Amino acid sequence: MIVQKYEEMLQGKSVIRTLSEKATKIGEEIGYENVFDFSLGNPSVPAPAEFTKAMQDLLTNEDPVALHGYSPTLGIPWVKKAIADSLNRRFDMNYEAEHIFPTSGAAGAISHALRLVTEPGDEVITFAPFFPEYIPYVNLTGAQLKVVQSREDFQIDFEALEEAFTEKTMALLVNTPNNPTGVVYSEETLQTLAKFLEDKQNKYGHSIFLISDEPYREIVYGGQPIHFVAKYYANTLTCYSFSKSLSLPGERIGYLAVAPTCEKAKTLVQMCGQISRGIGHNCPSSIMQMAVAKVIDLTSDLSVYERNANLIYETMRDVGLTCQKPDGTFYIFPKAPIADATEFAMTALKYNLVLVPSDSFGRPGYVRLAYCVGEEKVARAMQAFREMMAKEKFC
Amino acid sequence: MIVQKYEEMLQGKSVIRTLSEKATKIGEEIGYENVFDFSLGNPSVPAPAEFTKAMQDLLTNEDPVALHGYSPTLGIPWVKKAIADSLNRRFDMNYEAEHIFPTSGAAGAISHALRLVTEPGDEVITFAPFFPEYIPYVNLTGAQLKVVQSREDFQIDFEALEEAFTEKTMALLVNTPNNPTGVVYSEETLQTLAKFLEDKQNKYGHSIFLISDEPYREIVYGGQPIHFVAKYYANTLTCYSFSKSLSLPGERIGYLAVAPTCEKAKTLVQMCGQISRGIGHNCPSSIMQMAVAKVIDLTSDLSVYERNANLIYETMRDVGLTCQKPDGTFYIFPKAPIADATEFAMTALKYNLVLVPSDSFGRPGYVRLAYCVGEEKVARAMQAFREMMAKEKFC
Repeated sequence: MIVQKYEEMLQGKSVIRTLSEKATKIGEEIGYENVFDFSLGNPSVPAPAEFTKAMQDLLTNEDPVALHGYSPTLGIPWVKKAIADSLNRRFDMNYEAEHIFPTSGAAGAISHALRLVTEPGDEVITFAPFFPEYIPYVNLTGAQLKVVQSREDFQIDFEALEEAFTEKTMALLVNTPNNPTGVVYSEETLQTLAKFLEDKQNKYGHSIFLISDEPYREIVYGGQPIHFVAKYYANTLTCYSFSKSLSLPGERIGYLAVAPTCEKAKTLVQMCGQISRGIGHNCPSSIMQMAVAKVIDLTSDLSVYERNANLIYETMRDVGLTCQKPDGTFYIFPKAPIADATEFAMTALKYNLVLVPSDSFGRPGYVRLAYCVGEEKVARAMQAFREMMAKEKFC
Repeated sequence: MIVQKYEEMLQGKSVIRTLSEKATKIGEEIGYENVFDFSLGNPSVPAPAEFTKAMQDLLTNEDPVALHGYSPTLGIPWVKKAIADSLNRRFDMNYEAEHIFPTSGAAGAISHALRLVTEPGDEVITFAPFFPEYIPYVNLTGAQLKVVQSREDFQIDFEALEEAFTEKTMALLVNTPNNPTGVVYSEETLQTLAKFLEDKQNKYGHSIFLISDEPYREIVYGGQPIHFVAKYYANTLTCYSFSKSLSLPGERIGYLAVAPTCEKAKTLVQMCGQISRGIGHNCPSSIMQMAVAKVIDLTSDLSVYERNANLIYETMRDVGLTCQKPDGTFYIFPKAPIADATEFAMTALKYNLVLVPSDSFGRPGYVRLAYCVGEEKVARAMQAFREMMAKEKFC
């Protein structure tokens, strides 16, 4: 017997895939350097040289039996401590090694966090627009993802949240800096959210967890301070990935940090070890755990993302599109000039621009540009964008 | 709300942990070089130098953006092809790249395989003694693990299997070469098993899958040929890990190979990509995929395991313990001289011997020795074993 559920999931026609295939075809005709592909969120800057050096040092100097040996189920103790110390240093927190669970990227962290605090039938709320993978992340656990629209400025709409919240809501899944909008939650949003959740905990008499998906935490613009979500709300489960900050998306390395203020914080980390047994996780790569720990406070040179953001935002404003200025990430999310964003994206393809229509992010009528692309190419792309907006009659 | 199920799993008192703590205490007193720790299956020989060189070459010569970039959801195509080609070359099979799904070790492969072919409530049969992690691997999917005792020689007892098999049995989970016994299934066993499953498929009118857990595939003694399980039965899902063959257990790298003869073989691999979304898997480390592909036909120097096996087996025979001679792995599974294997293991501790009593492997009355330990230490340990058997009055 083959399980039908997963076979049926394969049928879902992906707009992104269709676009990507068309872009490949265009690339074959006119050369890939002339395709302005803003569809994929794959970092465009290299990992820092210090990371490569840390890997080489480990391979050269460590005993291979120990280096590649089993990591303890809950992660390598000194790696966990390095992560905790870094969070404490940077965000004035009180993590101990025992609050940290290394995972296969943020996806692995979220998959553990969801299983810690939800049973099948429970509800998890997220805010649209949102990363579409949240749907399988949540729904394949047996819990249900419930989507609440955020405001026009992409901050939380607390009236809409109040309306959607029920006694079955066990967790909120938030993502700031946000994919796909590039918006960062303001301190006011985080403070109001904490108060809202505390009230709900009192009302329902049980813990409600904030699952904070933070792969873009270090990519914030204008020298703004990072608002570390777990500072604002006690029951926060922080899901982090080194994919974007160190440009290592393929290495699947990240962690779940259980705030020391969480109910049974250290027990939650130990429970992650049990969850792993059911989902076949068993820790991320041991050399990868060690290498990121050795460069724990570093990032890749992320400055290109801000320069790209500024150039694209100016263009959107000049051509008259409604667009929230990104505070970080490498995404921008302008409103399409016509109601049907897919039609707009198809038109853009004629100008060799690959944009992702927003329907799959749960907020129709927009397009997402992932501008982890070289600066020179972004400049040429914006010329093409201006040309399109001048020539096409969008009504 | 914190999910009780995982918190309760933490309460399970582990005999192995108790033993390990006692062994650590002894080590502190008399020096670790004098503790004969046979409790853990962590390879004792280094990864081949070619593996380390492959990693260093990748780090030195590849563009870090591509090297550490996202792997495609279904794995890196040339890596998948290298794995398929190697299996075809060595076992005369017909795998294509599209039949291979790289995973986080065999645990990741099994977690995908089980979800491909079982729904909650279905049954999966395995044969005792068995790797205890099969219990959470299966039961946390919602399916149920059903245990059938194997014969005294640890080959399959087909009468017992016939009795246990029901219309709800969707898969068998087998492990040859076997942890904890070191026994390899004979060709006759594999042929009879294939016939048995084919008959059951005809009887029930649906596919029944053989999930073959093969991390010890290359560790076979006496120059015997490897019986590649998928050669014998069409609906075989092969779960492999490079943990033991390349001594990389901490790197979490392996694959699921769907036999080309499986029902909807390539669709099954595509379905793995959907399963991954629910369990947060998203491919193993990209550099690790590439590095193992570059040394795909190599292994560590595994010869020490056979020499250790011979020495320990001779000792067991000389002291009069019933013991099946291992055909491979780095385990041996002698019968304890008293009914209570835990009591025997506790007595052995007095001689600084750390043995694992067999209760957790589903076959009481035996002990497991994991002899991935230096040869010189094994020799000293066997002296201690002889001394124990001479001095202690086991009735």
